[in-house]
Parts: sequence; C-alpha cells; structure tokens
Amino acid sequence: MSILDRVARLRAEGRDVISLCAGEPAGGAPREVRELAAATHASGAALGYTSAVGLWSVREAIAGHYARWYGLEVAPEQVAVATGSSGAFMLTFLAAFDVGDVVVLARPGYPAYRNILRTLGCRVVEVDCGADTGFQPTPEVLDAALAEHGRIAGLVVASPANPTGTMIDRERMTALAAWCAEHDVRLVSDEIYHGITYPTDPAAPDARGVCAWDVPGAESAVVVSSFSKYWGMTGWRLGWALLPADLVASVDALAGNIALCPPAPAQLAALGAFSEASYAEADGRVAGLARTRSLLLEDVPSLGWGPLAPADGAFYLYAGLGERLGGYASSVEWCAALLEEEGVALVPGVDFDGAHGQGYVRLSFAAGADAVAEAVTRIRRFQER
Amino acid sequence: MSILDRVARLRAEGRDVISLCAGEPAGGAPREVRELAAATHASGAALGYTSAVGLWSVREAIAGHYARWYGLEVAPEQVAVATGSSGAFMLTFLAAFDVGDVVVLARPGYPAYRNILRTLGCRVVEVDCGADTGFQPTPEVLDAALAEHGRIAGLVVASPANPTGTMIDRERMTALAAWCAEHDVRLVSDEIYHGITYPTDPAAPDARGVCAWDVPGAESAVVVSSFSKYWGMTGWRLGWALLPADLVASVDALAGNIALCPPAPAQLAALGAFSEASYAEADGRVAGLARTRSLLLEDVPSLGWGPLAPADGAFYLYAGLGERLGGYASSVEWCAALLEEEGVALVPGVDFDGAHGQGYVRLSFAAGADAVAEAVTRIRRFQER
Repeated sequence: MSILDRVARLRAEGRDVISLCAGEPAGGAPREVRELAAATHASGAALGYTSAVGLWSVREAIAGHYARWYGLEVAPEQVAVATGSSGAFMLTFLAAFDVGDVVVLARPGYPAYRNILRTLGCRVVEVDCGADTGFQPTPEVLDAALAEHGRIAGLVVASPANPTGTMIDRERMTALAAWCAEHDVRLVSDEIYHGITYPTDPAAPDARGVCAWDVPGAESAVVVSSFSKYWGMTGWRLGWALLPADLVASVDALAGNIALCPPAPAQLAALGAFSEASYAEADGRVAGLARTRSLLLEDVPSLGWGPLAPADGAFYLYAGLGERLGGYASSVEWCAALLEEEGVALVPGVDFDGAHGQGYVRLSFAAGADAVAEAVTRIRRFQER
Repeated sequence: MSILDRVARLRAEGRDVISLCAGEPAGGAPREVRELAAATHASGAALGYTSAVGLWSVREAIAGHYARWYGLEVAPEQVAVATGSSGAFMLTFLAAFDVGDVVVLARPGYPAYRNILRTLGCRVVEVDCGADTGFQPTPEVLDAALAEHGRIAGLVVASPANPTGTMIDRERMTALAAWCAEHDVRLVSDEIYHGITYPTDPAAPDARGVCAWDVPGAESAVVVSSFSKYWGMTGWRLGWALLPADLVASVDALAGNIALCPPAPAQLAALGAFSEASYAEADGRVAGLARTRSLLLEDVPSLGWGPLAPADGAFYLYAGLGERLGGYASSVEWCAALLEEEGVALVPGVDFDGAHGQGYVRLSFAAGADAVAEAVTRIRRFQER
C-alpha cells in the first residue's frame, strides 16, 4: 500500500496524521484567477475546444511572463500551452525522441520522467548525482554516460528539482547547454518550480531560477513550466512548453491528436495569473514557504540527518537518514514505521532514486510551519525510541 | 493551409462564412454544471490534485450513469476518469498495447486513433468499411485482416462514428465482441457520441447506443466515453474509460505518471451533469439536433450526392460527392473552392479515409438548422455553376 493510501486509511480511522508528502502548495489559485473562473462560468460561455496548443491570448501572456521575469523575448508562436507540465512533457518527448533513443536523467529525480519515457520506448539512463554536485548533473557525468552509450538523444534537467529542491545556477546551465549543443543532445529543462526560490537577495539576477533559454547555445532546448506550483493551480492541469523552431509544427500536430486542446476554462482563468495582484499573491505565498523553510532548517540539525540537499527552491528537503535509519532495512520501512507510530508521512527516497534512495527521505514543507514543527518533534521522538 | 485556418482568415477579412466543420455541439455545458463550476470557484476551493483516475464521487456518478442508461452494473473501481476521451484513449492504448502490436481501425474513421497509435509504435491496419456495411467493420473484414497479419492485438470501433454517424447495433456489437474474444483481440469501443442518436422510438432498448459492456463476451473490452458531446463540454477535457479488471492497476499507474490527474475543476462541476435537469437539458439539445438533421435529410437529395451514410447518431453527414465532384481532382480541391466561392466550409473525406476519401465530404450539422439550410442553398448554387 502506498504512503498516501495509508495516510488516507489512518485518517479515516480517526488518527491525527501530518502528511509532509504533498507535491503542491496549499491555498490554491490566486484570487483573480478564481474570480475570473467564476465569472466565466457564470457568463454561460460555451467553453468549446481551443487551438490545440492553446488560446493565443494565453500564449501571449506566457511570452510576457518571460519578458517580466527573465527579460527574455519569447515569440507566442513558440509557446505551446498544454494539459499541465505532464502534457507538455508528453508532447515534448513524443516530438523530440524516437523509440530506442537514449535519454539521460539525474538520479535522484522526478519518477514520472523515467516512467513516461520508458512507456514511450526510450532507453532511460539515470546518472547518479550526489550531494557534492548539488544532486544535479555535470558535463563530467554526461561525458561518462556518452562514453558508455555512444549516442545520447536527450537530457532532462529540473531546477529547482524534485525531490531535492536544488537549483542549476547560470554557470552550470551554460555548461550543460554547451555540452548538449556540442553533442547534439536535446536539452529539456523542467522549470515548474521557478519562482518558488529562497535567494538571499530577491532582486538579484536569476533569483527566480535560470531559464534554459537564457543561456548561450540553448537554441534547441525545450523549457517546460506550469501554472501549478508558483500560482498554486495544480488541479487545474495547465502548463506549457517553450519550443525551439524545429519542434513547433510537430508539437502542434501531436497536440491535436493526443489532447485536442488544454482545458479551456483553466486557460481563460489563467489569464488572471499575470496581473500585478496575482504575482503579489503568489510571491506572498512563497514568502510564507520561506518562513517555514527557515524554521525547518533551524530544526533539522536536531534530527541528526545527512547528507542534506540545500533546498534552494521548491518546498522539499531531501535528506539522508544516515545512522538514524537505525535497524530499518531502508527508508521505506522507516517511513512506514514513522507513519504508524507517530502519524507523520514522508516519502521514501526510493521513489526518486532506485539505486541509493533507501537511505533517504523527502520532506515537503508545503503543509506550513505548524505542521512541520510538530512533525519534526514527532520524528525526533520516533528516532529516540 | 487547413480548412479551419482558411475559415478564420476569410472571417478576418469580413467574409460571411458558414463552417460546417465543427466537432462539437453549440451551447456548452448544462446550466447546473456551469453553476456548480461558478460556485466552486467562488468558494475559494484550492482545487489541488485528485486521485490519478479521478474523484471517487465522479467515478460513482459515472457508474450510476451506466445503470440509468443501460441497466448496467459498473463498479466505480473500474471507471477511470481521464482528461477527455483523448486522455482515456492514450491511457488505454499505453496499457493495452505494446510497440509493434497490430491494431485494427475502420476506414473511414477518426484520424486521431491512427495518429496516436502510430505515435506509440503500434502497427495500424485500416480495414475498408463501405456504405454496404454501414461504414462499420464486420467479422468478415476482420477475418481477412487476421489472415493477412497473423495476429491482431486490438480493434477500435466507434458508434455513433465520426465521420459517418453510423451505429453498431446489438447484433453487430455482439458479433464483434465474440470475434474479439475468440481471437484474443482487445476491443476498444468509442462511445463518446452515445445519447446523440435519432431513434424512431426514443424509449426503445439501445436507443442511446449499444454499450460494448452490455453484450456477451466483452469482458476484456475497454469502453471510452466523455462529457464532451452529449453534455456539450468539449473544452473542459473530461472523459473516462470503463476498464476490464486486468487493466485497472496499470491504467492507474500510467495516469499518475502521464497526467497526474484529470482537471479537478471540471471533475467537481461534472457532478452536476447527472441531475434530472442536466439530462433533460442535454436531451433537449439532442432534440434540436434531430430537427436540424431532419431538415438536412430532406434537403440533401437535391444535392445529388451519394452514397450517403445514414447518420443515425452524432451530428455528421458523410457523403460521397459522386458526379458532383465535377472537374475537381478530389474533395480537397472541391471543398477549397466551395469555401472560396460560397463561404461554406466542409471537411474533405481524406481526413478520415486516406484511400477513398477523395470523393467524400463530412458535413457537421451542429451549427443549427438556419446555418445548414443556407449552406445547402449555397452548395447547390456552387454545384450548378
């Protein structure tokens, strides 16, 4: 039984369970988005199919977002709105890769990349990225993968990453883009957690994250992002891809066939995400996450965990349990026991790293400061038994 | 340039264009669905991720729909809510078929089946289904396909079908299901146009269409349907699959990876589709389509077309142009000229039948009686030049 199923069952039994498993921020969409959605439905709009890659107005608004955050000029023609970043990844992978192609992923990483790619017949190569390289790939590990596999069709990176929250800085992104350009590898950059970052100087360049399209040599890269995380619209299923010119036509054709179009009500409402008020509301929520993160990082040393990812972005802490694993065979059993005994749910690292995740857990602090503080207290108690 | 792009450009130039290309009914969702959506958004609900195969309440409501319309007992566990029937097809094809598998489709047929399956690496075999068999496959054509290809993994059927509107009656569905069971072929039944039917007796059994799960031997069949057509919710992207027991777990896992979940706002609103008022509203819209269809069928003989599909369901007439094709090389050029000269847009048959569609067109009568009557007048004028 999965952790989430077990959480649901314990809660149904009346247990007080703190779930730090969430992959989504609390609070939902900005007010203006919700009001626009309510007004659209109240107006009786028919909400039929849109263009396969989304309404032009939404594509323009997303292009404007890149000007605002990164000073980047993006042509709306190169923005493909999709059904969540999930839909954008499916379209990107289908358009960019063929059956049998080797696609490289960082390990630990978001398991759906691997699962989608394998489902589509790609050969997934996971490269181990440890705490020493911020759990992110380097040209050196890619060189080694290339030497082993001969030809690499794609590299998927994520910054801020899930499960680690670590980010790819400008220097690293430039090096990765150059490596990909040199070896004719399609770079796919997952930037869905952009904007959920904790820079010391929020006005510094790259404070929102470095966009892959903002470094030299990334002309063939695909950038994937979403309304889900920064704007808190996970359930709405709306994301996008920035497409290099050579993929625009094929993604358009694929989208018409595999999806018809992204959800029309969500598209119309998402136009409300780009107002000053909505940016301010989302930034305010990030400030709340930042406070929770600070409290967590103060508390964590008392748990005796390590190594720890620095959690520069997103709302995750990925941590090695080290000696705190105690007598448990792996973090799977450790997490199961923690949930039964103390009613705290974490995600075991094996979900993100089949090779080394047995010693790791992912803690999501999206549940807020009170929940996280109480959870840490309970985890400490659990470990002291 | 596609017909739809050309329509948009002519309209932008101020031309009065009647488009009979629509794959969606006019009018949008039932009032109760729209009100529920507006209220949900006004309430400030967070609308996060749901279960990968949808909210339990929606799965229960869909099961109830099968009891209401077909007297069928469907377990909610076997209902997978998806992002439109498109999402349901993607999940079904990924779960049921492997790279290299032969999947049989009727020709003419909905092009996305073919395109999705090919994208996933399946071998698509299109079997010609002419007017003599209601443009639907028979065990005889399947026998011939089996003899040629040795092994068939799947058969996709649609009733009412796009582009023909023809239906598979109980006798034929029983024969097809038996044939599939005998030859270990997965039957996938597209029933998205169920309920948009024009029976002489609306109270007769099977008046809504014959559900593949309602005939003997269809235990391994997948039924795909949607809120898009009968309930007029195309842009909302919400559909479902009824899954045989052997596919439930794999579809659940796939859905979590490729989609995360169907759109949450649409799911919550769709609960309003199953009220008496919403069924009545949708039935009223079907009655309107029936009136348009009657007028069209009265007018069509004056066009001198043939062969004609009987258009028993959906809102399409699929017709051979016969001698009316005149000097045009195919219906592609004929449709282009009709659009330029008379401002009427039809879809050329080649979109649905790469082998024989050159002599056919699809006319959607979803645009309503006035538009259709005026279009027929213009087509007659075009043909008399």
